[in-house]
Amino acid sequence: MFHHVAIVGATGAVGREFIDLLARPGLQARRITLLASARSAGTTIDVNGAPHTVAELNRGSFQGVDLAFFSAGAAISRRYAPPAVEAGAVVVDNSSAFRMDDGVPLVVPEINPQAVRAHRGIIANPNCSTIVMVMAVWPLHAVNPVRRIVVSTYQAASGAGAAAMRELQQQTRDALDGRPLDPKVFPFPIAFNLFSHDSPIDRTGYNAEEIKMVNETRKIFGDPSIAITATCIRVPVLRAHSAAVNLTFERPITPDEARSVLSSAPGVRVVDSRAPQHFPMPIEADGIDQVLVGRIRQDISQPDGRGLDLFVSGDQLRKGAALNAIQIAELLAAGA
Amino acid sequence: MFHHVAIVGATGAVGREFIDLLARPGLQARRITLLASARSAGTTIDVNGAPHTVAELNRGSFQGVDLAFFSAGAAISRRYAPPAVEAGAVVVDNSSAFRMDDGVPLVVPEINPQAVRAHRGIIANPNCSTIVMVMAVWPLHAVNPVRRIVVSTYQAASGAGAAAMRELQQQTRDALDGRPLDPKVFPFPIAFNLFSHDSPIDRTGYNAEEIKMVNETRKIFGDPSIAITATCIRVPVLRAHSAAVNLTFERPITPDEARSVLSSAPGVRVVDSRAPQHFPMPIEADGIDQVLVGRIRQDISQPDGRGLDLFVSGDQLRKGAALNAIQIAELLAAGA
Repeated sequence: MFHHVAIVGATGAVGREFIDLLARPGLQARRITLLASARSAGTTIDVNGAPHTVAELNRGSFQGVDLAFFSAGAAISRRYAPPAVEAGAVVVDNSSAFRMDDGVPLVVPEINPQAVRAHRGIIANPNCSTIVMVMAVWPLHAVNPVRRIVVSTYQAASGAGAAAMRELQQQTRDALDGRPLDPKVFPFPIAFNLFSHDSPIDRTGYNAEEIKMVNETRKIFGDPSIAITATCIRVPVLRAHSAAVNLTFERPITPDEARSVLSSAPGVRVVDSRAPQHFPMPIEADGIDQVLVGRIRQDISQPDGRGLDLFVSGDQLRKGAALNAIQIAELLAAGA
Repeated sequence: MFHHVAIVGATGAVGREFIDLLARPGLQARRITLLASARSAGTTIDVNGAPHTVAELNRGSFQGVDLAFFSAGAAISRRYAPPAVEAGAVVVDNSSAFRMDDGVPLVVPEINPQAVRAHRGIIANPNCSTIVMVMAVWPLHAVNPVRRIVVSTYQAASGAGAAAMRELQQQTRDALDGRPLDPKVFPFPIAFNLFSHDSPIDRTGYNAEEIKMVNETRKIFGDPSIAITATCIRVPVLRAHSAAVNLTFERPITPDEARSVLSSAPGVRVVDSRAPQHFPMPIEADGIDQVLVGRIRQDISQPDGRGLDLFVSGDQLRKGAALNAIQIAELLAAGA
């Protein structure tokens, strides 16, 4: 049970989602503090029906706070998470700032809930694309270790925030009306287009988003030996990420086996109807808690039966961000 | 040199592209006949500045025709290509009707131009996703055989024809204005959404589009041993297909080697600038002849150095359909 919960980045896309999810039974905070930059301070937001004024984030914002959700980027987390912890709060951080730090658990509650116990004040919420993928891969890995993953993502605008979602909508209108496109949030036009994820590219040629999928999956699974390659692509979709996932297992595995395992996996919904061609789609993953998984089939390029292909869609703002962080807090509240 | 060229499916998206490309120097037909269904017959279309009336396709349409481009679906090709051949025409068929037939060459002129010689009246144009992918993979395969391909596509609406492109535009407008969406051409909403390619799914769980990429690549490369798996996804993009391609080669290969090979490959343009993050994008592939290739990097999941990842975009209507067919005709005209 937490008495006083702070949300850092309350006016952002993930922040709004946190506020929507605060009414969940596992997490009934008596007091809520909404924090944001000076620019957004003063905004009024309803929380469970009661208006709350957003305060400006500063190093003194965390007096009496026992739980703080951070979702305002890595720089803000690096600066304000330590004083929050010093003030006695547990920080559940949605940024990449601490994810790969040794003393910081990186948690997907359906996968490694026990990891929260080792926290020293900060628990990291994984990258959104990683969460959506691992939700479908972990249940299979648990019965037959995954040796290699080749993943290609189809990532929604929401991953770049509320302004990016508005840019997709406005720019699409401009494109339809024949007006010139003027990208501001994204480096390239997103209307009726797609492009390589715009996170920084390192010497290997991978971008930061792809490297997150590689490193975070290994840390969450507790298995540094899994071989992973990822190609992360931004597509003109509003808020659910999708991914085509090719898997190589230690031993042969059949699609029926995989379907059976995934059908009883928590947080996953199998949507795999071949006749009506009903498979995971962003518009059906949008706004729901579960990650959708389908197109489950034997990979014909691996004749030894050790390969599967599948396709997943999951709400980037919900399970990909706010919901997963709330679930981490629920684990803490339940005394995990 | 062809005297009398017929275009079957002249009012469709690919048909219009054929008409735009008829002015190319290698193919100066003296007479052009435009053919379509009864519904479209009577339409007037400008060809090289002169108005042509579209005639209704029937078994007698091919009198005196020496070259016929077919792009009106497999059923029309199966019915009307044989009488066209009987009338003395060479048929370049853009449908899937004859692609895998033993007596029918399946040709990408940059890859297997010699194959046209064996034709018995019909030459098949490969599937659009296949063409876009093989344009980038073949030059590498020629120097270091590709042993396995894992490909995920990002396919434009144009692959389903002009009506699908209009549906994407109208439905996007409806979505932005909050009107209910009413999919007619596609089985699911395409506005701000994506879904598994809606071609029929076979017992293996692969759809026909994916199986085309597998079988056609092997036939074009003349190498039935290449292991291929594909996931084909329709995205809200107008007319260029993209694909994330993961490759395993017979021997180690470096990104620099690949970049150097691809830089001098015909029909390919390397767009691979890491600093400004300038990589292949549909809006830049749209309307051009070349297939764009970038994100060329060593696959970190294959530590033996035999893996590469890359990303391609190519105009589905141009190199993916009409241009490739026109190039086949140019090979014939040049006496290949």
